[in-house]
Amino acid sequence: MGVFIKAASLCVALAMLAACGGNDASQNGNAGENVGKSAKQEKYQWKLVTTWPKNFPGLGVAPENFAKLVHRMSSGRLSIKVYAAGEIVPAMEVFSAVSSGTVQMGHGAAYYWKGKIPAAPLFTSVPFGLNAQEMNGWLYHGGGLELWREVYAPYNLVPMAGGNTGIQMGGWFNKELNSIEDFKGLKMRIPGLGGEVFTRAGGTAVNLAGGEIYTSLQTGVIDAAEWVAPYNDLAFGFNNVAKYYYYPGWHEPGPTIELIINKDAYQSLPDDLVAIVEAAARTINQDMLDEYTSRNNAALVVLKEKGVELRRYPDEVLDVLRETSRIVMEENAQNDEMFKKVYASYNAYRKSATAYHQISERAYYDIRD
Amino acid sequence: MGVFIKAASLCVALAMLAACGGNDASQNGNAGENVGKSAKQEKYQWKLVTTWPKNFPGLGVAPENFAKLVHRMSSGRLSIKVYAAGEIVPAMEVFSAVSSGTVQMGHGAAYYWKGKIPAAPLFTSVPFGLNAQEMNGWLYHGGGLELWREVYAPYNLVPMAGGNTGIQMGGWFNKELNSIEDFKGLKMRIPGLGGEVFTRAGGTAVNLAGGEIYTSLQTGVIDAAEWVAPYNDLAFGFNNVAKYYYYPGWHEPGPTIELIINKDAYQSLPDDLVAIVEAAARTINQDMLDEYTSRNNAALVVLKEKGVELRRYPDEVLDVLRETSRIVMEENAQNDEMFKKVYASYNAYRKSATAYHQISERAYYDIRD
Repeated sequence: MGVFIKAASLCVALAMLAACGGNDASQNGNAGENVGKSAKQEKYQWKLVTTWPKNFPGLGVAPENFAKLVHRMSSGRLSIKVYAAGEIVPAMEVFSAVSSGTVQMGHGAAYYWKGKIPAAPLFTSVPFGLNAQEMNGWLYHGGGLELWREVYAPYNLVPMAGGNTGIQMGGWFNKELNSIEDFKGLKMRIPGLGGEVFTRAGGTAVNLAGGEIYTSLQTGVIDAAEWVAPYNDLAFGFNNVAKYYYYPGWHEPGPTIELIINKDAYQSLPDDLVAIVEAAARTINQDMLDEYTSRNNAALVVLKEKGVELRRYPDEVLDVLRETSRIVMEENAQNDEMFKKVYASYNAYRKSATAYHQISERAYYDIRD
Repeated sequence: MGVFIKAASLCVALAMLAACGGNDASQNGNAGENVGKSAKQEKYQWKLVTTWPKNFPGLGVAPENFAKLVHRMSSGRLSIKVYAAGEIVPAMEVFSAVSSGTVQMGHGAAYYWKGKIPAAPLFTSVPFGLNAQEMNGWLYHGGGLELWREVYAPYNLVPMAGGNTGIQMGGWFNKELNSIEDFKGLKMRIPGLGGEVFTRAGGTAVNLAGGEIYTSLQTGVIDAAEWVAPYNDLAFGFNNVAKYYYYPGWHEPGPTIELIINKDAYQSLPDDLVAIVEAAARTINQDMLDEYTSRNNAALVVLKEKGVELRRYPDEVLDVLRETSRIVMEENAQNDEMFKKVYASYNAYRKSATAYHQISERAYYDIRD
């Protein structure tokens, strides 16, 4: 805990030093006089760093789409240049770079910052928690977004949802899983709370950026890995370095991808550009889910043709993971006040959404075919 | 068929006569000179008519949110005034009013226009078809939106998704359903393709706007009605005039609500306002689903407290409805070329999404609790 608090304080200090420094706004002389601040034609040139490989399907394309849409809606008044992981900062330094004002924006996933902020993973995905539809509900009509902004405020950051992959796959393995004993000694790339649960269940969780997974699997640095779902997993070619593909993704049932904005940069925008940024974020938040929903099956068919064997996690394993998840969540809540506060909101929402989806979404899937 | 074609031709003729007539654009003298057409500060005053009661939760609030967001993003350059059903035109004349250019925009549901366009209901919801997540996937990454625009083009309309209620409930009844025989002679408010299936299964489908359902149930003009889901059904107080509340909503598993724009009005906008309108539509499309996802369970709890009895459709009834749906869809495809073309796209998407959701969304719902 002490380490986290120190890291947080340092971050705030850096952010204060860097306030507004990253903003490259220049006055345009041809401003209309009668239409308020928003039409002064002040131009903004921003940088957006991501945790993804360049133009990676879904995840990496979303921030490019975001930048294009903002440019179009603002007639070029807000121009955002997107950088892949490693171009300005490595994937795992996106949070710090935006917090300090080195760049104005970032696109990644909140659970990568678990070491800094124990509550952050709650805004990505929780094992056995909310799916994509429910995450959006919690964030936008259940108080989730307000809590997320409260949690990130000390880091000089304004977060918003910037995509969702839908429920992920359970991961790639080179041996079949028959019981929870098979997790013993297994090194798996699995970040966030799912990683904590995996470790508690006997394995060793490793946090790697997407671009590092393939080689790590190939060289045996890790034994197993989860990434996203067929559309993305095929793009990385994991079928070449692992044989068994497990479902369902108990650890990430509907992960929200995040857009983060340096708060000083955010506050420097006139109101119309703030609205444009928020609507563009909402657009990619939906569009990414639409894309995965549309591409996963065809990719899965290809993976099967390439010899990948699909396996369902055994019920015994799922039962242990569900109970372990409950324990891990409760312990996190006991160890961190903010985690406790956010999880109380999340969990109340989960109970309510689960109850209704029993007679709606779930009941419908059961009767469709 | 002949009647539909005549209606269509009339519509096109009216639209051509009215081209741009509803547009109230005025040049603003303080235009910046160097920022292209989009910053000329031309102002647009539009009217948007809806099929919903004033400020009705979810459905009626969405177009108000749309108008506010467009106003904010455009700094007031595009101002849209929203009118409830009956304020300018009755609910069931929204399509014609926008097509003819009497007003610039409409918010409603495509399946209300089944009498004009047999293929229209495919853009709302299909019995045993796509749920909300899948509808968005089909529209935005599966070719659905392009087809929708092709279908509406002869009517001088540009459609886009403007909300989704999620899977609906199966409707309100005053007697229990034990077999498909219980549909015989039953008059039910159930529009669209669901209505066709209901009629084919022995009942009599009636198409009524939302505001007319309560009284019709109360006076016995109809025996049963589906509307939306607990959040909306509680707002109308259907629990006062019916006792049994059935699930799941086989007839509307994830209905898309539509925004329609008169094509001349749409084409009169500069590119930045086009992008702003499309992003605002995308925002309310997601936001409405988020709202229903967040409010339905609490409303269901209240309905149960008020004595409503929840019932699941018997499997025997669902089996008949599923098979009847298949037949009705095939017949529609045989009777109308455009229906056939759109349904081919829809159905290919349904098969693919269903296959993947078996091992993702559905498998996850099964293991969560």
